[in-house]
Amino acid sequence: MARWEPGAQERLRAAALTLFAERGYESTTAAEIAESTGLTERTFFRHFTDKREVLFHGQDLFQATFTDAVTAAPENAPVVEVVRFALRSAAEQFFPDERRPYSRLRQTIITANVALQERESLKMAWLAGAIATALRERGVREPQATLAAQSAVTVFVVAFDRWIAPTETRALADIETEIWDELRSLTTGSLTTPA
Amino acid sequence: MARWEPGAQERLRAAALTLFAERGYESTTAAEIAESTGLTERTFFRHFTDKREVLFHGQDLFQATFTDAVTAAPENAPVVEVVRFALRSAAEQFFPDERRPYSRLRQTIITANVALQERESLKMAWLAGAIATALRERGVREPQATLAAQSAVTVFVVAFDRWIAPTETRALADIETEIWDELRSLTTGSLTTPA
Repeated sequence: MARWEPGAQERLRAAALTLFAERGYESTTAAEIAESTGLTERTFFRHFTDKREVLFHGQDLFQATFTDAVTAAPENAPVVEVVRFALRSAAEQFFPDERRPYSRLRQTIITANVALQERESLKMAWLAGAIATALRERGVREPQATLAAQSAVTVFVVAFDRWIAPTETRALADIETEIWDELRSLTTGSLTTPA
Repeated sequence: MARWEPGAQERLRAAALTLFAERGYESTTAAEIAESTGLTERTFFRHFTDKREVLFHGQDLFQATFTDAVTAAPENAPVVEVVRFALRSAAEQFFPDERRPYSRLRQTIITANVALQERESLKMAWLAGAIATALRERGVREPQATLAAQSAVTVFVVAFDRWIAPTETRALADIETEIWDELRSLTTGSLTTPA
């Protein structure tokens, strides 16, 4: 009989990441993940539709952290400040320092597998779409809404990549601030090619 | 015996687009595409690996139009000018006015199918990666190379979307100029949310 397993989802996720990193994503089965935690395969499938889902679970919540902040940003704020506020909120809520080891491990697994990279690209494309929708709901017109949303995702991806670098210790929100400044320098033409 | 069919590839492509638009992408087979042009299925597969390839054929050439221009841009040009130059070169070589009806039809087919949308997203992600690589080869450091490449792709996608709009008549390169200006206004904070 199915019964509630306290913390089963978290145990399964931790076990999955360890196995994916050790044996490779392709070579690991849902049954092996369940077994390594002492849970049944049936319990695994009560929590996740498939093994890929372990790495992408919680995407709605992740996306809502950004879009809720877009909605909550001060009235009449410049569009760029609205998306900067959204990125900062998401960084603080979703990516505290304690999460960095998990994020590093997850990224290593994704980088090793082309299909997972495609899935991650798609997640970012959906995030941009969701932010653009939230901006339009605030009355931001096109093409500004799409430009702002895509730029926000670009800054997030570049900053996240630095955040998980081996020796990096700064908070994600601080790195994002630096990357936004780089983006502004870029678009105003103050960055010159050295060669 | 296999023989060379003059213009076979273009005839197959035109027939495929017509059938995809009329019957839907999923419902059209490679055999039907070949048949409607009076060619054999075998000839179809000499030109395309599968029916999806008809819509994504020539991606290397498309990408090279951008990256060759990055390489050829004037020395010491601001990074943003290098990518603006690349977008303008690609627009002029790849998307002259005569191509607009084809681009509109292709987009209609892609918009109707989620798997094709994913493939198109991936094509854009690869394009950004290729532009970033070409920029690094010019000596542009990170994160500027990635920021510039991603921004270029964002501007291209937004401008392209306007270029294929039903009543649009301007050249793609002119629309891109306008979108770059919008992006600069966005990042410098001069765009205010109305609500």
